[in-house]
Amino acid sequence: MIKTRRFRPSCPVRPCWFRNESVIKTVLASGLAIFTVFAAGAESTIEQWGRFELALNGPTNSNPFVDVKFSARFRQGQSETEASGFYDGHGIYRARFMPDKPGEWHYLTVSSSPELNGQTGVFTVTGPAARNHGPVRVANTYHFAYADGTPYQELGTTCYVWQLQPEALQEQTLKTLATAPFNKLRFCVFPKRYLWNTNEPILYPFASGPGVPPVSFSQDRSGGSAERRHLTVLPPASPGSNHSLETHGQAARATTNWDFARFNPLYFQHLERRIADLQQLGIEADVILFHPYDGGHWGFDRMPADADDRYLHYVVARLAAYRNVWWSLANEWDFMKEKKESDFVRFGEIVSRDDPYHHLLSIHNGSLIFNHTLPWITHASIQNGSAVEDPGRAELYRDVYRKPVVYDEVKYEGNIESRWGQLSAEELVFRFWNSTVAGTYAGHGETYQSDDQILWWSKGGVLKGQSPPRLAFLKQVLDDAPAGGIEPVDRWQDPRCGGQSGKYYLIYLGKEKPASWKFTLPKSTTAAGVAPADGMKFTVEILDTWNMIVMPVKGVFTLKKTDNYSYADKDGRSVPLPGKPNMAIRIKRVNE
Amino acid sequence: MIKTRRFRPSCPVRPCWFRNESVIKTVLASGLAIFTVFAAGAESTIEQWGRFELALNGPTNSNPFVDVKFSARFRQGQSETEASGFYDGHGIYRARFMPDKPGEWHYLTVSSSPELNGQTGVFTVTGPAARNHGPVRVANTYHFAYADGTPYQELGTTCYVWQLQPEALQEQTLKTLATAPFNKLRFCVFPKRYLWNTNEPILYPFASGPGVPPVSFSQDRSGGSAERRHLTVLPPASPGSNHSLETHGQAARATTNWDFARFNPLYFQHLERRIADLQQLGIEADVILFHPYDGGHWGFDRMPADADDRYLHYVVARLAAYRNVWWSLANEWDFMKEKKESDFVRFGEIVSRDDPYHHLLSIHNGSLIFNHTLPWITHASIQNGSAVEDPGRAELYRDVYRKPVVYDEVKYEGNIESRWGQLSAEELVFRFWNSTVAGTYAGHGETYQSDDQILWWSKGGVLKGQSPPRLAFLKQVLDDAPAGGIEPVDRWQDPRCGGQSGKYYLIYLGKEKPASWKFTLPKSTTAAGVAPADGMKFTVEILDTWNMIVMPVKGVFTLKKTDNYSYADKDGRSVPLPGKPNMAIRIKRVNE
Repeated sequence: MIKTRRFRPSCPVRPCWFRNESVIKTVLASGLAIFTVFAAGAESTIEQWGRFELALNGPTNSNPFVDVKFSARFRQGQSETEASGFYDGHGIYRARFMPDKPGEWHYLTVSSSPELNGQTGVFTVTGPAARNHGPVRVANTYHFAYADGTPYQELGTTCYVWQLQPEALQEQTLKTLATAPFNKLRFCVFPKRYLWNTNEPILYPFASGPGVPPVSFSQDRSGGSAERRHLTVLPPASPGSNHSLETHGQAARATTNWDFARFNPLYFQHLERRIADLQQLGIEADVILFHPYDGGHWGFDRMPADADDRYLHYVVARLAAYRNVWWSLANEWDFMKEKKESDFVRFGEIVSRDDPYHHLLSIHNGSLIFNHTLPWITHASIQNGSAVEDPGRAELYRDVYRKPVVYDEVKYEGNIESRWGQLSAEELVFRFWNSTVAGTYAGHGETYQSDDQILWWSKGGVLKGQSPPRLAFLKQVLDDAPAGGIEPVDRWQDPRCGGQSGKYYLIYLGKEKPASWKFTLPKSTTAAGVAPADGMKFTVEILDTWNMIVMPVKGVFTLKKTDNYSYADKDGRSVPLPGKPNMAIRIKRVNE
Repeated sequence: MIKTRRFRPSCPVRPCWFRNESVIKTVLASGLAIFTVFAAGAESTIEQWGRFELALNGPTNSNPFVDVKFSARFRQGQSETEASGFYDGHGIYRARFMPDKPGEWHYLTVSSSPELNGQTGVFTVTGPAARNHGPVRVANTYHFAYADGTPYQELGTTCYVWQLQPEALQEQTLKTLATAPFNKLRFCVFPKRYLWNTNEPILYPFASGPGVPPVSFSQDRSGGSAERRHLTVLPPASPGSNHSLETHGQAARATTNWDFARFNPLYFQHLERRIADLQQLGIEADVILFHPYDGGHWGFDRMPADADDRYLHYVVARLAAYRNVWWSLANEWDFMKEKKESDFVRFGEIVSRDDPYHHLLSIHNGSLIFNHTLPWITHASIQNGSAVEDPGRAELYRDVYRKPVVYDEVKYEGNIESRWGQLSAEELVFRFWNSTVAGTYAGHGETYQSDDQILWWSKGGVLKGQSPPRLAFLKQVLDDAPAGGIEPVDRWQDPRCGGQSGKYYLIYLGKEKPASWKFTLPKSTTAAGVAPADGMKFTVEILDTWNMIVMPVKGVFTLKKTDNYSYADKDGRSVPLPGKPNMAIRIKRVNE
């Protein structure tokens, strides 16, 4: 229910809320669809963690992206959130809000422009719909959960610039994701120019020079140096604009002098549409804000500092109300040779300050790991394939950061020449399991050579590898595990053993091929676990992680302390194993 | 040469230097011996990085440890150092200085007491003696060197409270160290009460209650609950002292109410003597300022914050001028349950601020690793035995901290029941080699059960294990390696390979037992190395790290690029190996 009405004060310290009492135009965003209502008194409901959107007509003279300050304050009781607004072209200014509580919310606009200042209104927020669990947050120090407490078992993949490929390919990517096991997708805001990705994007993020309109290309799928372009331009801006976005007959080129002070709203509207598409699939969008795969071709990797900062303010103002957004400050931050480490600290502080909802915020490394102890970093996003070759390695970063560790790049399943893109599916699945029992998370990517130059890791399309079904099996195992996350149980002693002490254990044997496993549990107690004790009873299952088979072991195992460090079965039983690699042992407490 | 003369101003902004123009009493510290001269005009020389000591008579009323502020400023040209002074009993106040440059130095005292304020003088510093290389500093980000640039190949051991054992045992420890390979010793300022160490110390750091003198025990060597104590007390303080340190007939006990505001100078004089003894042996003293092995027995692990801070100021004022001092804020900081993490941050800031020479400063963990990214931490001191079971693990902390990583506790060679004290010598040596090729440093400790309860790790004495000669062999290898330190050459790819690219490689095969090794070098370039290139020539030696044998391989190996990542010998040669574990391959560039 949305009502436009006079705001009734309950907080006398905020008189500015009443500078403009006119009935205003409101916009409502419900669920995934954003629809703009320019009429007073429109009624509807918005769900908790949905997007409320306020759209107002404002000035179009000068440069609206730079010259007009606009934000909105959203209030319920004592809780108030200020959301930055943004200019969306055509004289329209928007401010978005993701309410975290149901009930009646009030808003007040604040602007340097009288037209946009002091607008007030009220709307009603209902409880979340069935599949809406809110944004993902850090839970239990090392793990994740949705805002409503539902565990989020992170399983990500990467398609760096899927949304900048031809429309049909984007749709194919979404179709693939709909049945894949992944619940996070890493991708870049800016276009990418790199091996297997030398085609121009379908859109550009900035206007191409002062007074020049933002342009949009729909491109053929041959990739490479595509010359046959179809130019799309924004419709003319409202009359009276000094710097209207006029149509322009010349295609933007890579060498264009971009006007970093004028965004292309179409570019970001498209990005938002794709983020909303992912949300509908239950997939988190790990939005990469900067990356080095430009190399000066467009120059988005070497904008001046004020342009970088304005870009961040703009992106956060646009996207923060999408509940499935995560911020990744950069991919391979240290490979951006035009930036200093201190620039990324500034970027992180901007995003952290601007984002009223404190979405997950990380930064991904090339060879130099960022200082993930900084307070605004929510989790360590790490590229290091070697770290997940062994759970004893994977665990070490947890101790250092005391935050969730996500190995967002562990090398890719594929067959390209580069050694980062030629893992076997078996090796990739092995790395996922290592990261799992270490209490961390790994990321998927796929780089199979292809005549059409479409590699999943860069452009999306279809998955060709053998790991996704095995990762779906792993996901099932994780979904079946107790809430609170897998912890390394016998840290710094036996890295193969993850779980929650006294409740649940997952022992991953990796490349070992034993014919049996002596039933032994460490005495250690984990954060979400209980102390093991004599007499506790457990069932055992053998998981063939490659062939995706669960084999229950007959009978029940009963704990008996053996020494100062461990418990065995009271009858000294062992678990017979098939003598093959990729076995895990799942041990669950029997309810007594 | 030391001269006492009127100070000639060169810095007009410091008029305070001239508040007292009287000819003053000076003290000279030369080399290791500190001798106090209370006469004007005494002449001698002090070497660079030696200790200059100024001793003045001052007030003895009230509590001199607390009520008198005293420091000295030492100046040469534009360089000035302020060193805090300290009260050393008997009405004597001292300030010490470690000059880092030869030539003429001037000093001026600053004090809240008129007697101690405004004293000036001048003395001459000569170049360092032959075995004096200055304090150890961080070098090349991950390594260490003495201040004069001489590489310092860190090889430490641990005798936590060796200096608090009976005199004869202390002497035996020094005798053992004189022929052992170690160039660093970790030990605690405070006494320790723990397994195999329940005897009382020979001295206590504080007076036992207001007006009660500090006490000293010389104890029999039976350990445990020694009852036969010989009491030593400080001589009477100078007449006129309100709080003189009178003789006292009663032995201090564990349950004593310590007066944390009155130090026992004897305790610290003794500590200093032992630090000087180590210096003479070329051994760095890694002084552990706090530890949990008190458990409230004496209560030094749970002093109030003001007592902690005063203790730190006092210790730093006393010890900072010893060039071989390192500060270890704590052993197993997180096991000190009476302290918060923020306390240790405060401690670190105090030590860092007080120490004019910025000696190496670290903090050692139990199970919770400290935030070693903090700027005042010079190197990561880490307890984690599992991290050095694999060089691929050992290396990971380097990337995180971008500082030297010293694994100060990797479990100990020994045969006690605790799993941290029962490594075989072979396993300990294996861990040292892993840490070496990973570009990090490991620490030694020994815990062999003994009828006399004297375990090296706690009390010193004699070494009984098999690892020390192997560590001496490792030390020889390191001393032979090029300056600048061993770096992981093919980081995140092949952790077995350390060295300096294009110059020197050390490939450690650990528990592998291959019959041959295909000569292959990675293409990577390390910080102190050069890029490998076709035609470069190398000699190869096989090192049996356990049997301490160097086996040269016949002929010369010539590089030829094989693929995008590596070089092999141009003729595809392999290196024959004995098929035994613990082999390393040393590869040195041939001078052409």
